[in-house]
Amino acid sequence: MSGCDIRGMAMAARAAARALACAGGDHKNRALRAMAEGLTAARARLLTVNAEDVEAARADGQTPAFVDRLTLTESRIDGMARGVRQVADLPDPVGAVTGTWRRPNGLDVGRMRVPLGVIGIIYESRPNVTADAAALCLKSGNAVLLRGGSEALRTNRAIADVLSAAVASAGLPAASLAVVPSADREVVRAMLSLHGLIDLIIPRGGESLIRAVREGSQIPVIAHDKGLCHTYVDESADLGMAGEIAYNAKVERPGVCNAMETLLVHAGIAAAFLPGFVARLRAAGVEVRGCPRTQALVPDVVPATDLDWDTEYLALTLSIRVLDSFEDAVSHIARHGSGLAEAIVTSDHRRAMRFLREVDAGAVFVNASTRFTDGYEFGMGAEMGISTQKLHARGPMGLTELTCEKFVVLGDGQIRDSRK
Amino acid sequence: MSGCDIRGMAMAARAAARALACAGGDHKNRALRAMAEGLTAARARLLTVNAEDVEAARADGQTPAFVDRLTLTESRIDGMARGVRQVADLPDPVGAVTGTWRRPNGLDVGRMRVPLGVIGIIYESRPNVTADAAALCLKSGNAVLLRGGSEALRTNRAIADVLSAAVASAGLPAASLAVVPSADREVVRAMLSLHGLIDLIIPRGGESLIRAVREGSQIPVIAHDKGLCHTYVDESADLGMAGEIAYNAKVERPGVCNAMETLLVHAGIAAAFLPGFVARLRAAGVEVRGCPRTQALVPDVVPATDLDWDTEYLALTLSIRVLDSFEDAVSHIARHGSGLAEAIVTSDHRRAMRFLREVDAGAVFVNASTRFTDGYEFGMGAEMGISTQKLHARGPMGLTELTCEKFVVLGDGQIRDSRK
Repeated sequence: MSGCDIRGMAMAARAAARALACAGGDHKNRALRAMAEGLTAARARLLTVNAEDVEAARADGQTPAFVDRLTLTESRIDGMARGVRQVADLPDPVGAVTGTWRRPNGLDVGRMRVPLGVIGIIYESRPNVTADAAALCLKSGNAVLLRGGSEALRTNRAIADVLSAAVASAGLPAASLAVVPSADREVVRAMLSLHGLIDLIIPRGGESLIRAVREGSQIPVIAHDKGLCHTYVDESADLGMAGEIAYNAKVERPGVCNAMETLLVHAGIAAAFLPGFVARLRAAGVEVRGCPRTQALVPDVVPATDLDWDTEYLALTLSIRVLDSFEDAVSHIARHGSGLAEAIVTSDHRRAMRFLREVDAGAVFVNASTRFTDGYEFGMGAEMGISTQKLHARGPMGLTELTCEKFVVLGDGQIRDSRK
Repeated sequence: MSGCDIRGMAMAARAAARALACAGGDHKNRALRAMAEGLTAARARLLTVNAEDVEAARADGQTPAFVDRLTLTESRIDGMARGVRQVADLPDPVGAVTGTWRRPNGLDVGRMRVPLGVIGIIYESRPNVTADAAALCLKSGNAVLLRGGSEALRTNRAIADVLSAAVASAGLPAASLAVVPSADREVVRAMLSLHGLIDLIIPRGGESLIRAVREGSQIPVIAHDKGLCHTYVDESADLGMAGEIAYNAKVERPGVCNAMETLLVHAGIAAAFLPGFVARLRAAGVEVRGCPRTQALVPDVVPATDLDWDTEYLALTLSIRVLDSFEDAVSHIARHGSGLAEAIVTSDHRRAMRFLREVDAGAVFVNASTRFTDGYEFGMGAEMGISTQKLHARGPMGLTELTCEKFVVLGDGQIRDSRK
C-alpha cells in the first residue's frame, strides 16, 4: 500500500487527540500563532517545493485554472498565515457546559462541548485548505488527517511539516496534524474503513469525489453537495428590492455554490417584473432560459427543459419559472432544491414566516441574497465548508460544528432502582 | 425484490414528511392520541395476528427468551398505548428559534429547529419498538420507515396498519409511518442506498446488525454500539458510597448496556475496599475476575486475561483492575471503554472535574451509577436508543435528537459585495 501506514497514522492522531482535548485555549492559541509564524518563515522553501508540483501539473497538461489554484505565491502564503492567526483570535468552543438541570433524585445533568476526536479531510487541489483545515481542527481540539489532491502532494507535505513542527514547538503533539503521504487511491479506501479510529470524514471537492467518499465510508461523513439555490419573487414583493437581490444572487459571483440557479416568479407580478429584470441580466451577459409563461413575457428566451430545473450552472445562466402561487413555489423548491440555500422576496409577513418554516434547506432567507450563505457572513468567524446534509451540521460549518456535546452528570451517591 | 417497492415507499414517506414538518403540535398530538386509542381498540386483532408469529417462531425452534420478546399480551399492548400517550404529553421540539444575532449589515441570523425528514429504523424482535418509534418520529415531525425482524413481520404490519389509520383519521398522511412489508435482506440493502430520500438510519439490535448497516449504508447512521462501562474508585472516594454505586452498576440489571463491566480501583484504597466489596458481589452471585494485584488482595479471584478488559459480559461477571493513579484509570478507559458511560467515585473536586473533561463518553458520571444512562432518567421524557457515536447525538437520544437546526436569515434587501 505505497508504504503508507494509514492505520498507524490514525492511531498516532488518536493519541494526539487525547492530548488536544485537554489542552487549554491559551495553549492551543500559542500553537496556532507558532503555525502562522512558521508559514511566514518557510515562504522560500514552500515556494520552491510548490514550483515542483506546478511544473509537474503543467507537464501533465492540467488546465490553467487548475494550475492557478495549485500555485502558491508569497501573498497566498501570507494569506494562509493570516487565516491561521484569525482562527487563534476566535473563542474556544471546547469545555462549555450550557447549563445543567436537576433531577428529582438530586442528579445534576448537563451537556459539555468536547472535540470530535480525529477528523479526516479529503480535498482537491488548493493547498491553502491544508493550513485552514489544520488551524480549525487544532482550535476545536481535534487531530486531523489531511488527504489532498495528488498534484499538490509535495506542497501539502511541506506545509504540514511546517505546521506540525510549530505545534510541537508549542508543546502539543506533532501528530495533531498530518498529511497522508501517498497519492494512492487504495490509501483513501483504507482510511474510510477506519471506523473507531477516525470520527468524521469531510470531503471537499466535486460531486464525484463526494459520491465516492460517501459510498466507500464506514465513518460518518459530512458532505458539501451541489448548490441549486432558488430565489422566489412573491406577488407582494418590492420589485426594486427583488431585482437587486436576484441580480446579486445570480451575477455577483456565479461560479459558487450559493449563487442562484433558478428564479421563481409569482404570476401576479411576472409581467411587471420580468421584462426589465431580464434586460438587466442580459446586459450583464446572463443567458436566460424560461418556462412557456416566461417566454410569453420576454422575447428570445431559450425554452427551459426539465433538466434545467435540476442543473447547477455555476455560470452566467439562469432558468426562470412563472408560478401561480406561493405553494407552487415551495413545492418547486422541495422538488428541485439541493438543500443549500433558498430565498423569498416578499412584503407579506405571513408568507415570509411560512417560507422560513416550510422550506427545507441549510439556510433560508427572507429579503436577502443567498450569496450570504457563508460562515464569515453569518458571523461564525471561520468556515470548514457548507453542509448540505441534515445530521449534526447544516449550512456553514464553523468551529462549533467540529465539536459535539457529551452528557455530564454530577451526583452524591445516587443509585438506580428499576423497580420504582 | 419480493414485490416490495422500497423506493416508492420512501418517496411516499418523503411527501408525508413535508406535511408533518408543517403540522402544529396540537395536530400531531391529536394523531398520537388516536394512535393510542387505535392500539387499545385493536387488542383482539393484534393478539390473533401475533399468535401466528409466535407459533411460527416456536416451530422454527427459537429460544424461549426470543419467543417471550416477540409475544404480545393485553398488558403489553396497553403499555404501548400508554407510551404513545406519554409522547403526546412531551413538548414539541419543532419550530423553536433559539435566538438570532444581528450582523453589521443588519441581517438577523438565527437557527430554527426542524425535523430531519424521513428516518429509517432497522430493529430486531420486540414489536413494541414499532409503536414507540412511530410515536417519537411523528411527534418530532419525521416520517418513518420501520423494518423489524422477519419473525415479527405479521405483528409489526398489523400494528402499523392500526397506527397509520389513526394518523389518517387525525388528518395527517397515512404514509407518515410504514412497516417495510418484506423479510428480504435485499430490501434492507436497497433501503440503505436511498441517499436523498431517507435522511437517517437508526439500527437497533446486536453487533452484527449494526455492523452490517454501517458497512452497507450510504445514508448517515446513528448506531448504538456495545456498552463497556467502567466505574473508577479513586483513593479519595467515600468507600461506602463507592460500594453502593459499583454494586448498583453491576448487579441491579446486569444484562443492559449501561451496567458496569470493569471496576477500576486506586491502589491506595484497594486493600480497604476490595475484600469486603467482592464478598458482597459474590453473595449476589457475581463471578469476579481480576488483575494480579486484585488476586493478591482477594482469595479465589479468576485471573483476568487481556480479553476481559474488552468484554461486555452483560451478565453477573465483573473484571477488576487495581491501578496506581488517576491517570492510569483515565488511560485504561480511553483504551477499553466503548464510549457509552463512565463513572468516577471521588471526594477530590479537582479529580472529579478532570474526569468530566478528560473521559470521552456519551455520559460521564461523578459519584453516581452508570445505570442512570437513559433518556427517561436524564429527564428527556423518551428515548430512541443511546448513541455511542459522536456525530449529531451522543448518549440517550430524545425527541430533540430526531431534529436538526437550519439557519434562518431575515433581511430587508441586503445584497453581498465580495470586493469589500
